[in-house]
Amino acid sequence: MSYDFYMPTRIISRDESSADSCVKTHSTIFALGKKAVIVCGKHSARACGALDDVESVLKKLGIDYIIYDKVTENPPVSTCYAGGRAAIEAGCDFVIGIGGGSPLDASKAVAVYAANPDFAPDDAFSDNIRAALPIIAIPTTAGTGSEVNPYSVMTLDGKNVKKTMKTPYAYPRVSILDPRYTETLSRETTVSTALDAFCHCAESYLSPKSTDISRMFAVDGAKKIYNSLDAIDKLGSDADDPECLKLLRYGLMTGANAGGIAINTTGTGFNHPLGYNLTLYKGLPHGRACGAFMSAYYYYNRTTELGAKLIDDFCDAIGVEWAKVAADIVRWSDVKIGSAYGNALTPDEIELYVNNVKGAGNYKNSPYVINPDEMRDIYQKLFG
Amino acid sequence: MSYDFYMPTRIISRDESSADSCVKTHSTIFALGKKAVIVCGKHSARACGALDDVESVLKKLGIDYIIYDKVTENPPVSTCYAGGRAAIEAGCDFVIGIGGGSPLDASKAVAVYAANPDFAPDDAFSDNIRAALPIIAIPTTAGTGSEVNPYSVMTLDGKNVKKTMKTPYAYPRVSILDPRYTETLSRETTVSTALDAFCHCAESYLSPKSTDISRMFAVDGAKKIYNSLDAIDKLGSDADDPECLKLLRYGLMTGANAGGIAINTTGTGFNHPLGYNLTLYKGLPHGRACGAFMSAYYYYNRTTELGAKLIDDFCDAIGVEWAKVAADIVRWSDVKIGSAYGNALTPDEIELYVNNVKGAGNYKNSPYVINPDEMRDIYQKLFG
Repeated sequence: MSYDFYMPTRIISRDESSADSCVKTHSTIFALGKKAVIVCGKHSARACGALDDVESVLKKLGIDYIIYDKVTENPPVSTCYAGGRAAIEAGCDFVIGIGGGSPLDASKAVAVYAANPDFAPDDAFSDNIRAALPIIAIPTTAGTGSEVNPYSVMTLDGKNVKKTMKTPYAYPRVSILDPRYTETLSRETTVSTALDAFCHCAESYLSPKSTDISRMFAVDGAKKIYNSLDAIDKLGSDADDPECLKLLRYGLMTGANAGGIAINTTGTGFNHPLGYNLTLYKGLPHGRACGAFMSAYYYYNRTTELGAKLIDDFCDAIGVEWAKVAADIVRWSDVKIGSAYGNALTPDEIELYVNNVKGAGNYKNSPYVINPDEMRDIYQKLFG
Repeated sequence: MSYDFYMPTRIISRDESSADSCVKTHSTIFALGKKAVIVCGKHSARACGALDDVESVLKKLGIDYIIYDKVTENPPVSTCYAGGRAAIEAGCDFVIGIGGGSPLDASKAVAVYAANPDFAPDDAFSDNIRAALPIIAIPTTAGTGSEVNPYSVMTLDGKNVKKTMKTPYAYPRVSILDPRYTETLSRETTVSTALDAFCHCAESYLSPKSTDISRMFAVDGAKKIYNSLDAIDKLGSDADDPECLKLLRYGLMTGANAGGIAINTTGTGFNHPLGYNLTLYKGLPHGRACGAFMSAYYYYNRTTELGAKLIDDFCDAIGVEWAKVAADIVRWSDVKIGSAYGNALTPDEIELYVNNVKGAGNYKNSPYVINPDEMRDIYQKLFG
């Protein structure tokens, strides 16, 4: 029994009764400083309308800003560091991150580098962070939950290795959830990011670190996301029609946020480290790579009394039998690796993957802790 | 549809697997400054063990402190102001509030007065608050939810009038929920404070300001509190045995906290202003005074489609039919006013009460808004 909770980020969601964007109806929260650095990628922040909304609000408030739009997927440390230097040079005193997980994570790193002008790039991974510029986070995908955690995952330059900046100073002050910014996402991105978010909820619920409150958020998120994915599934190819997906945007965005709040307390479970390998070496989208392991996750955890009880409670709350939940998530993940597809993982690949999983702490974060033989077995059975 | 949320207070709950108090297992969070002012009442903070735990932790950390134990029920402005002056004189830089709603509210006012040495007593009610000392809140009752809001209700000196200090600076940094501190409460106090907390949940759920998240907390709190009150009811006079009540302490304390989080988003509904009069003029405990109106609250709100739907959803989540929930809450409130008891409210009293309710904004905070005739009717039927 635990009831611990910490979520200092203010969450503001769209008022559906208003024609205006959430950014515009809450413009006063942008008066966070004298000059903003807007951190985003090259295209999507503009394409979805978020960047235009932010610029128009800042202009109205008479707040100066620069746009740092160099963030790519899996942002390199050097990109984030350069953003911090640009913010210092321009005299920015707050940060606005717009985008999916990568731009939001980058915005936190920029906030830290900008507030610590003496930092070398590596110092973002030290325990010496004592300040960050205040951050407003505006997600434009519904998946990572980056808008409600203090982490920034960056890629070490020239290496295929990710490292995480962790500091309570990097919690966004405000997250603005406007589902309309996700309306321009493709069905493929919508589903993959939603699967990531569902895994957050499912893995968080089973974590030994879960609390009464984190489990509430996990259930709320899971219900919303499962129901949305189920609806997309039933829509079939009609779901490629933006109008059909539009109806589901609120559930997906707030559900993904709830999943983010849940894992902020608990962390993730073994779907995540198992899935990372498929992303790293096979280029699979993160969410589908994690979702592919849902049946294995429930299979092993159901061998413990606590795991079976928690899975039943969780799926009861969704209103669907656990085996169907697991099968649906795996099916929606639609990973086409294995002998049936003529691209089975080799024993050497599996060995490499298992070694990577062993190096991640979160594979232990559930009632049942899989051992290396079981990891091998999971990869072999699913993708051998 | 709304998903807005803000709760900057970190919530730490007791680890039941530890023999030590929550204060002791989380001693490091007390390193909030160089010198603390502990704000509490004369007796209960000591009697329940909380004050001893805090003193022992501060001594261990080498943190100096003063104890300001002059807080009484419905704390006068002068008492809080004097606490602020004492904190300034002693050079305190953080506040530890220990107690029920009154000491916790007082601790917030002390934090504001101490951080604003130029303030006159009335300035706490102005919009000019720009600072407060950081606060650790340690509730020793399970009811008000004061540990998770930024409000401080004080009584104007020499008048029977309350006024509320409102400032985001007064959110406690940390709230420590240790159910053992409530084990010394009498059954009477336990039930009355729980009824207050249940009303918070019930009224918050129906509020037009409610969000997905506030409703989640309202349901979590209501389930825990209703089940505990039901258990106390079934225990009958055995529930006066501290050992029996002990089992329910976790649910009551975390349930009351959840209710506090819920009303922090929504505010309360009309049970509260109707109940205030019974407390003010008849000396009834606040929780029982509010609970007495639950049937009326559901009766009127069920006349609207939205109200009926929300009440059904809420009571479904508790797992009990709405009419039974309302009847139980009224019965547990056990208010003995009316012609059957030879102490019926007079028409003049009812007129005075109705006028007071009209002056409170929160009577409008539900799907159905009662008019003065209906207020009159409610008082007349229940207590005439």
